[in-house]
Amino acid sequence: MGRMTGGDPSLLRRINSAVVLHALRGTECATLTEITRVTGLSRPTVEGVVEGQIEAGLVVEVAAEEGAARRQGRPARRFRFRAEAGYLLGLEIGSHRVSAVLSDLDGRILGTAQKAVLASAPADERLERLRATVADLLRRTGVSRQGVRAVGVGSPGIVEADGTVRLGTALPEWTGLELGERLRRSFRCPVLVENDANTAAVAEHWKGAAAGSDDVVYVMAGLSPGAGSLIGGRLHRGFGGAAGEIGALHLLGRGETPETLLSTNGEPLHPLDEQAVAAVFADARDGDAQAQAALDRFVRRLVHDVAALVLALDPEVVVIGGWAAGLDGVLEPLRKELARYCLRTPRVALSVLGEAAVATGALRLALDHVEEQLFAVETTVTARR
Amino acid sequence: MGRMTGGDPSLLRRINSAVVLHALRGTECATLTEITRVTGLSRPTVEGVVEGQIEAGLVVEVAAEEGAARRQGRPARRFRFRAEAGYLLGLEIGSHRVSAVLSDLDGRILGTAQKAVLASAPADERLERLRATVADLLRRTGVSRQGVRAVGVGSPGIVEADGTVRLGTALPEWTGLELGERLRRSFRCPVLVENDANTAAVAEHWKGAAAGSDDVVYVMAGLSPGAGSLIGGRLHRGFGGAAGEIGALHLLGRGETPETLLSTNGEPLHPLDEQAVAAVFADARDGDAQAQAALDRFVRRLVHDVAALVLALDPEVVVIGGWAAGLDGVLEPLRKELARYCLRTPRVALSVLGEAAVATGALRLALDHVEEQLFAVETTVTARR
Repeated sequence: MGRMTGGDPSLLRRINSAVVLHALRGTECATLTEITRVTGLSRPTVEGVVEGQIEAGLVVEVAAEEGAARRQGRPARRFRFRAEAGYLLGLEIGSHRVSAVLSDLDGRILGTAQKAVLASAPADERLERLRATVADLLRRTGVSRQGVRAVGVGSPGIVEADGTVRLGTALPEWTGLELGERLRRSFRCPVLVENDANTAAVAEHWKGAAAGSDDVVYVMAGLSPGAGSLIGGRLHRGFGGAAGEIGALHLLGRGETPETLLSTNGEPLHPLDEQAVAAVFADARDGDAQAQAALDRFVRRLVHDVAALVLALDPEVVVIGGWAAGLDGVLEPLRKELARYCLRTPRVALSVLGEAAVATGALRLALDHVEEQLFAVETTVTARR
Repeated sequence: MGRMTGGDPSLLRRINSAVVLHALRGTECATLTEITRVTGLSRPTVEGVVEGQIEAGLVVEVAAEEGAARRQGRPARRFRFRAEAGYLLGLEIGSHRVSAVLSDLDGRILGTAQKAVLASAPADERLERLRATVADLLRRTGVSRQGVRAVGVGSPGIVEADGTVRLGTALPEWTGLELGERLRRSFRCPVLVENDANTAAVAEHWKGAAAGSDDVVYVMAGLSPGAGSLIGGRLHRGFGGAAGEIGALHLLGRGETPETLLSTNGEPLHPLDEQAVAAVFADARDGDAQAQAALDRFVRRLVHDVAALVLALDPEVVVIGGWAAGLDGVLEPLRKELARYCLRTPRVALSVLGEAAVATGALRLALDHVEEQLFAVETTVTARR
């Protein structure tokens, strides 16, 4: 601590470098004079930093004709952040499909890909489908595997910090799978594995229904629901990564199991049988009384789950994703019941990103990781401002 | 940002000052040479900083005989942090009593005081009892009101940032009360008002059942339960200050109201009638079947509430306070049921601080406030280490 506060020159260098990168990233291109003005750094400092960043491949001089209109005399040199200096991948591993989304260092989406997979597929087959999806996407976008700087992955289950799935009953052979380790063999960069409801929460906060709100609960409503939450803009994983794993909440409440919840004939449904569930939803829309009763049970369970989360966390906004996002008239009963149970009622919104939420949030986590490396020092200094 | 990172001298001064104060506070007393070694600062910097802190009354030179054994020649001057340079108050405003606890700047408890108050007492009377309790405590400890640097207050209800009670049904005339404003008239220092379950959580984390754990849920188990939680060591208030206000959870579950829960004769109890509740608990201990059945219902409700909080938050430890803390055999059913419902089971412990929890946590909040002023800069710099 002492040396740092005494003015560690390498710390200052890193701070200055992060400040310049941050300034360049916020604009299309800038002259040294402009960078000097925006950052408050001295001209020689800015020159030294920019020189180093050009060497590192993060900054490039913009050709004169690319820049603003010429003035008289020799035009000032202009520089820009090289968003194409690296790429990020966001991956979703679901029960029925795997998907991938690719972006540059600015988070601009360059392409997406997906493949169907059987709910019963063993882990090897599921991961093979994922690898094929990624290969497809990289080929189509012309991005080399070596250019990928970080990979984020959204998967069902409780995921350890190293990417091992501690518990994951939604996918075959998932519990105990060293998912992070397995995927790291395919990539020469950091691979970050996260619970799927958590990445979906991150995505809706980044560019979805929760944009602008830092206290968010995302509910992935299915037969066995999960939730992800952001507190003060940061993902809340819980002490053991199990926060929001609310699948058992119904046991505490009305005692209906997921399998019987949407059953219209007394026969339990399989929790992952989306076709059977879609059929119930369709029948309800067509006026089938039993299907409507089943749907009512589903919405009541959703209300119960959401209310428990809201009472515990008091979020600014609740985003409803998963199956429920596709249902008409799910928001009104939710809002009405929340107003009844909660001392402070949050805003309730449907997911904006829908099926893209999990992979998009995984991409954001990868981007966060790289940004932390590029801007770590700056974050430290501005943390409390 | 630019000026700061370019080496703002006043920022550096504040950092250095905080570093020295921190070093002095961690030891009984120290020489300039020792401070220089511990902090990594230069001798002239340390001398300048210590000089300023002596002027500010925060540091004092220790008389030679107070220090370590003399060596040959003139002994080195020794300095210590003046914990007596200021005092903190922690206050509890409850339905049946008000209490106060006083400490110095090191958080060392110097005294406590309390007075009974009627559950039906209007707000003015309750606040008057509180003032009398504080006056009593200050008189007994010989501390002047002007020496109090910050006051923390724990009170039932949802409390706004400015100390206004947005909703507080547990105490008469509490909803809408400008509690912070009212108390600020009695003190010439910052007054921080916080929900009582929240301050209790802070207290158990500071010096109770959750010491050493940063992810904590504290449940104040009464007929209408409340909860407070720490996430990553920080109090989680929620977006609107209503996090943990789980009084309505039972409505979502088995539908029993607080008033009928512990009734043994069909007549509803008043939620604040602690004597009636104590009688039921005593009857249960004596083997009364109806009282035992009522107690079973109480524990089942507690299990339901705790499980919902655990599923939403995934804490490392759950601390049970309030009435339930005095019950025999409440932990075992809780642990058993949590293991059944939760994917990751937290440690469950009874409150260590008992009735002192709310005021102790309020004191800690006051201490945090003052420490933030003294050490704010240091916190910024070390936030990510």
